[in-house]
Amino acid sequence: MAQSVLLTGAAGRVGSAVLSDLADEYEWRLLDRDPPTEELPGEFVVADITDEDAVREAMVGIDAVIHLAGDPRKEAPWSSVLPNNIDGTRVVYEAAVEAGVDTVAFASSNHAVGHYETDERTPRMYREDDEFRLDGTELPRPGNLYGVSKAAGELLGRYYHDEHDLSVACVRIGNLTKGHPPIDYERGQAMWLSYRDCAHLFQRCIEADYGYEIVYGISDNDRKYYSIERAREVLGYEPQDNSAEWNGDERVV
Amino acid sequence: MAQSVLLTGAAGRVGSAVLSDLADEYEWRLLDRDPPTEELPGEFVVADITDEDAVREAMVGIDAVIHLAGDPRKEAPWSSVLPNNIDGTRVVYEAAVEAGVDTVAFASSNHAVGHYETDERTPRMYREDDEFRLDGTELPRPGNLYGVSKAAGELLGRYYHDEHDLSVACVRIGNLTKGHPPIDYERGQAMWLSYRDCAHLFQRCIEADYGYEIVYGISDNDRKYYSIERAREVLGYEPQDNSAEWNGDERVV
Repeated sequence: MAQSVLLTGAAGRVGSAVLSDLADEYEWRLLDRDPPTEELPGEFVVADITDEDAVREAMVGIDAVIHLAGDPRKEAPWSSVLPNNIDGTRVVYEAAVEAGVDTVAFASSNHAVGHYETDERTPRMYREDDEFRLDGTELPRPGNLYGVSKAAGELLGRYYHDEHDLSVACVRIGNLTKGHPPIDYERGQAMWLSYRDCAHLFQRCIEADYGYEIVYGISDNDRKYYSIERAREVLGYEPQDNSAEWNGDERVV
Repeated sequence: MAQSVLLTGAAGRVGSAVLSDLADEYEWRLLDRDPPTEELPGEFVVADITDEDAVREAMVGIDAVIHLAGDPRKEAPWSSVLPNNIDGTRVVYEAAVEAGVDTVAFASSNHAVGHYETDERTPRMYREDDEFRLDGTELPRPGNLYGVSKAAGELLGRYYHDEHDLSVACVRIGNLTKGHPPIDYERGQAMWLSYRDCAHLFQRCIEADYGYEIVYGISDNDRKYYSIERAREVLGYEPQDNSAEWNGDERVV
């Protein structure tokens, strides 16, 4: 069971979701390029994810890593995702192996498979009665260079698992929003991930016993085109939210 | 039908194989970091594959690209494959799209799937009577960081195809040797690619009509654990060689 957890990109949105529910569950070491603007649990390290020495140092005494750091913009240019997302993720895996860390949970993205949303499939695939499902066994089809960088992070994880026996879970995060699901946006509702389901899923990634996994990070939405079966079976993910229980910003169920 | 072909990494081993049979078939523009040491067909451009301006200029008037440039060492460090193999391949796709090129054939590698060769499967999987086959639909399992970089090049190709309608064929090249197959090396015999089959396969990649393909580049060896069915069906690949027809360095069939 993980006790000391390094959270990279701690000041970002996914980091907030994770910490909002898990602040008291672990001894946290938080890492971000920018210093914190609010009070956060544990120890805070200000460092760039591409700084090998700083990341190596931040890894000492850590049981598990939740690696969120990187350029989060779907329109991020190659000149940013190459160092920050691809190389930065390699730095994290490398330092984790060196420090004897057990598990890295990596924030991948729905953009790694964005081009499955073809004109022929959409908007039908976003609807409850459509059977189309991606389950993580399919080859990536990135929708942008950001998505390429996330799929490359998955690839690197596969390598560090196979070569060094590091447990790696890649979570293809859907549309993470605080409170209610996206409004008037079928696609976003189909891939909604609530804050508490996000925190719970990353907790399962650092608690469960597995080798290498690619799972989808969405709530249990009636609308969905990403399967959450693998996350349920292997990680023990039990989502509590469903975008169908909302009408706009009001919970109706 | 392609007429003007840009061959990157022209001075390398795969480049030699391609040019040995196809020198008179196309108007060649050859690009390599190093100037040629022998007489080669067409025009020669000395440039680094990561030099965006040089690659953009080399792409003008080109119908198809055979992209071989990159660090070819299976033990190449990340500090080399990140710029040369990953970024360099992105430079090629980007310039190809900009110049309106139809097709890019990309030299991927068996190392993109090296970690399928587990202790449980080997050496059995290298033998004629074993049924294990990879066919290009499986997720990559790179055997080294060089393999990660090649799988990343495939990913980038998927993106440039989906986003810009560039035809991209990724050829996971096996063990390319001139003359006879590797001797006393079951694995190398199972993934042998003869020079003439290599040239023919890359020719099919720039002549056939397809969208995005991942194929294995091996001869029609009796021993094999890579399927060549997809290359046959979609590209019209008709290999002439088979490592089983050799005993050491002597052809016996």
